[in-house]
Amino acid sequence: MNLKEKYGEWGIILGATEGVGKATAEKIAQGGMNVVLVGRREEKLHELGKEISEKYNVEHLVIKADFSEENAADEIFEKTKDLDMGFMSYVACLHRFGKLQDTEWEWHQKMLNVNINTFLKCFYHYMGIFTKQKRGAVVNYSSLTGVTSSPYNAQYGACKAYIAKLTEAVAYESRGCVDVMAATLGSTITPSWLQNQPGGEEGKKAIAAAMTPEAVADEIFENLGKVRSLVVGERNRKNVHHWHCDLTADEAAEYMGKFYE
Amino acid sequence: MNLKEKYGEWGIILGATEGVGKATAEKIAQGGMNVVLVGRREEKLHELGKEISEKYNVEHLVIKADFSEENAADEIFEKTKDLDMGFMSYVACLHRFGKLQDTEWEWHQKMLNVNINTFLKCFYHYMGIFTKQKRGAVVNYSSLTGVTSSPYNAQYGACKAYIAKLTEAVAYESRGCVDVMAATLGSTITPSWLQNQPGGEEGKKAIAAAMTPEAVADEIFENLGKVRSLVVGERNRKNVHHWHCDLTADEAAEYMGKFYE
Repeated sequence: MNLKEKYGEWGIILGATEGVGKATAEKIAQGGMNVVLVGRREEKLHELGKEISEKYNVEHLVIKADFSEENAADEIFEKTKDLDMGFMSYVACLHRFGKLQDTEWEWHQKMLNVNINTFLKCFYHYMGIFTKQKRGAVVNYSSLTGVTSSPYNAQYGACKAYIAKLTEAVAYESRGCVDVMAATLGSTITPSWLQNQPGGEEGKKAIAAAMTPEAVADEIFENLGKVRSLVVGERNRKNVHHWHCDLTADEAAEYMGKFYE
Repeated sequence: MNLKEKYGEWGIILGATEGVGKATAEKIAQGGMNVVLVGRREEKLHELGKEISEKYNVEHLVIKADFSEENAADEIFEKTKDLDMGFMSYVACLHRFGKLQDTEWEWHQKMLNVNINTFLKCFYHYMGIFTKQKRGAVVNYSSLTGVTSSPYNAQYGACKAYIAKLTEAVAYESRGCVDVMAATLGSTITPSWLQNQPGGEEGKKAIAAAMTPEAVADEIFENLGKVRSLVVGERNRKNVHHWHCDLTADEAAEYMGKFYE
C-alpha cells in the first residue's frame, strides 16, 4: 500500500527503538513514508534509521526524547514543524510492578507523564494537523491489561485503558477524515517483554502463545482505515470476549492479578 | 451498618456538594462516621454539613478546594492529617463537549487535573493510611462512558476508564484489608446531569430511565466489601453486557457518539 500518497510524506513513531515501535516504523517506510524515530537511546535509533533508509529508500530523522520529562513533547513538535506529517504512532509506555501505595510517588508521576501526559500532548498536536489537512493516520497502542485491569501493575493497566478509550472516541469523531486506530495488544515478543518472562517450561509456553511485533504490525495495517478499535490476534480477541461475557470484572481482575502473585 | 466501628471515625468525600457526592456523605454519616466535605462551593458545603450533623448526630469539616489546581490535594491532606480517617470517595469530575483537538488545551489540562492527577494523589494518600492501619474503605466513581468510550466527550470517558481500571486493580491488591470499590454509574439525576438533558418527551424519557443519587448510594453500600467492581443499576448492567457481548468496540463507540450528534 502506498501510505505516502494516502497520508503524507513523514510519519512519527514515539517509542521507536525496538519491538512494536520498530515494526511500525518499518511498516510505514515500506509504504513509502519517511520516518521520525523518537526515543531515549539515540545511538540505537540512528542505527535503526540507517537500516530503514537503506532497506526502503526513505529518509529518517532521529529525535532524542525522554517521554517522562514534562516538556518532552514541545521539542518534538518544534523539530517536526516543517515536515509534511501524515502518520503518528504512540508506542512508548512505562510500568512498575507492586501495589499502588507501595510504589514511590516519583514513579507514579513518571508513569503518568509517559503513558498519559506526553501521549495526550502528541495525539492532540498531530490530530490538529491531520484534521486540518484532512489527511493522516494514527495508531495508538493499548494492552489487554487495560481491558481487565491489572493488579500489581495497576497504574499501567489504567493508563492503557485511558489510551484505548481516548483513541476509540477520537477515531469515531474523525472517521472519514483521519484514520485513527486503538490497537490493543496481548503478549508480544519484544526485548522488554522477554525480560519479564519466567524461565523453563512456563517461559517457553508464554513465548509460544505470544505474537511477533511484525505479525502485530501486519494485522494493524491490514485493518487501518477499516477498524477503529482492534484487539490484535485471534487468541487475544477470544480472551477479551471470554473475560467480557463469561467473567465478572472482579473475576477478570483476579485472573490478571494471579500472574504476579 | 455501623461504618464507624468498621472503618474509622472520619470519611472524606471529594466532590461532596450535590448529587452522588452528597448521597455518599449522607450514607457514611448514617453509618456513624463524621464527614469531611470537599469542593469548590464553600457555602453550600457548610449548609450540607450542618444538615448532616443535625440529622445524623455526627461532626463535619468543610474544606474548600478546586480539584483542577495542581496542589489541591496537598492542602486537603494537611487538613485531615490529625483525623482518624477510614473512608474516602472520589466523586469530582470535569468534562467538556467537543472533538478532542477542537477543545482548548487549557481545558484538557484541567480535566487531567480533576479526573486523574488529583484523583490519583488522593487515592494513593488514603490507601497508604488505610493499608497501614488495615482498616478503611474507598468508593471511586466511574461512568458508562468509560466502558464504551465517549465520542465528543473523549477525555471524560477515557479518564473514567482510568479511574475504573485503577480502582479495580487496587481493590484486588487490598482485598481482605481495605474495602475498595469501583462504582460505574449510568445516568443519575443530579443537578449537573439535568442541565445536559433535552426538553420535552425525550428529556422525560431520559429522566425516567435514570437513577436517583440515593438509590445509587444504597446499592453501593449494600455491596461494599463484597463486590470490587460494580456497575450500579440493573438496566446499566444489562447495557454493559449487551455492549460487551453483542457489539464490537466500534459499534459501542458509535452508539455513545450518536447521543451528541
